[in-house]
Amino acid sequence: MMRLVLLRHGQSEWNKANLFTGWTDVELSDAGRSEAAMAGKLMKDAAVEPDCCFTSYLRRAIHTAQIALSAMERDWIPMIKDWHLNERHYGALQGLDKTETARKYGEEQVHVWRRSFDVIPPLLTPDDPRYPGFDVRYRMLTQSQLPLSESLHDTVARVRCCWEEMIIPALHQYGTVLVAAHGNSLRGLIMMLLGYTADEIVSVEIPTGKPRVVELDDRMNVTKEYYL
Amino acid sequence: MMRLVLLRHGQSEWNKANLFTGWTDVELSDAGRSEAAMAGKLMKDAAVEPDCCFTSYLRRAIHTAQIALSAMERDWIPMIKDWHLNERHYGALQGLDKTETARKYGEEQVHVWRRSFDVIPPLLTPDDPRYPGFDVRYRMLTQSQLPLSESLHDTVARVRCCWEEMIIPALHQYGTVLVAAHGNSLRGLIMMLLGYTADEIVSVEIPTGKPRVVELDDRMNVTKEYYL
Repeated sequence: MMRLVLLRHGQSEWNKANLFTGWTDVELSDAGRSEAAMAGKLMKDAAVEPDCCFTSYLRRAIHTAQIALSAMERDWIPMIKDWHLNERHYGALQGLDKTETARKYGEEQVHVWRRSFDVIPPLLTPDDPRYPGFDVRYRMLTQSQLPLSESLHDTVARVRCCWEEMIIPALHQYGTVLVAAHGNSLRGLIMMLLGYTADEIVSVEIPTGKPRVVELDDRMNVTKEYYL
Repeated sequence: MMRLVLLRHGQSEWNKANLFTGWTDVELSDAGRSEAAMAGKLMKDAAVEPDCCFTSYLRRAIHTAQIALSAMERDWIPMIKDWHLNERHYGALQGLDKTETARKYGEEQVHVWRRSFDVIPPLLTPDDPRYPGFDVRYRMLTQSQLPLSESLHDTVARVRCCWEEMIIPALHQYGTVLVAAHGNSLRGLIMMLLGYTADEIVSVEIPTGKPRVVELDDRMNVTKEYYL
């Protein structure tokens, strides 16, 4: 039996400030750090102890993983950082206030951007300072990998690469694997694991800081799943 | 040109309490955490920005790496944890008070244990709770890899494995590599890099929290080295 533990990072400074975040590399708030420590405690108490951990290139997820592992005294397990697990890129919305954006474009348009599967929010231009091509951490990405904006569909497609090339082999090697990531990259994993349709996945809400344990057989069929 | 940055972790709770530590997995003290953040700031200010990081299985080194990288906003670089970079195992001395041990065995004996190359401190017995065979993180080690105690010679021999199999390839791949580790595992690296003899290496003192930059050509000859 293999176990995948999905953990969405807790509150970040920009969640608190009500801004569109996406690939912006903001810090966890103090509340977010507490959520991460509590998640580690829940895993420890349930004896769901990961032997390997995946996270994104964004520090709100990296720190969530570090804090949770520290709370269960498993700082020493391997931690693989993969940009494929980043939050969905929100294009030109990144950094904008959510309420102001709703006022400007209408509630309905913002809802479509946030909660549809194939709609892409307004694109960045490649000379925009927010373009990930300017960020040293993405220097190994090809032009076509560097997003100007992403639909949830785009996010799911890249999460699939990490799932198939990295996480499945790690489950076979290690048995229990933690993925500390973001609302939309975790939606991608859940969609693949549980066979949700595009229509279904957009309305799946993933609570922050609550470890979700997915038990798997060796063909990655889900045999059981539950929140801690 | 490749750069290896050596960083010894700062003060731990047991340094403060004057206890032999070795493989005991103690936390950094607040002073140790400040040293780590300062080390990160020094690297950032000098534009010595690692693309990859190695550390041990012990949290005082892992946290030093995490804090230093966070201070330079490079949380996202790969971090490889390798038990070969652990502190020297101090055998049955681990957990003993240094002053009391000196009183019991004599200053001279303690000096020999701490500052000779081939002398092994008193062995643990394999039923001792301090024996690393009982620790889940060392479950993949063979019997002969699990130390009952180590001379500096033993430590250097295992550090060599990490250097040759992991760090040299990472230097070629990444260019600038940080190793956040311990007094004696860093002595091992310095001995190999700078060609110190056994007599010389025992008296080399490595300051805590001060990044030491070693510039290397592609045969790993040192072309320049300096502290930040």
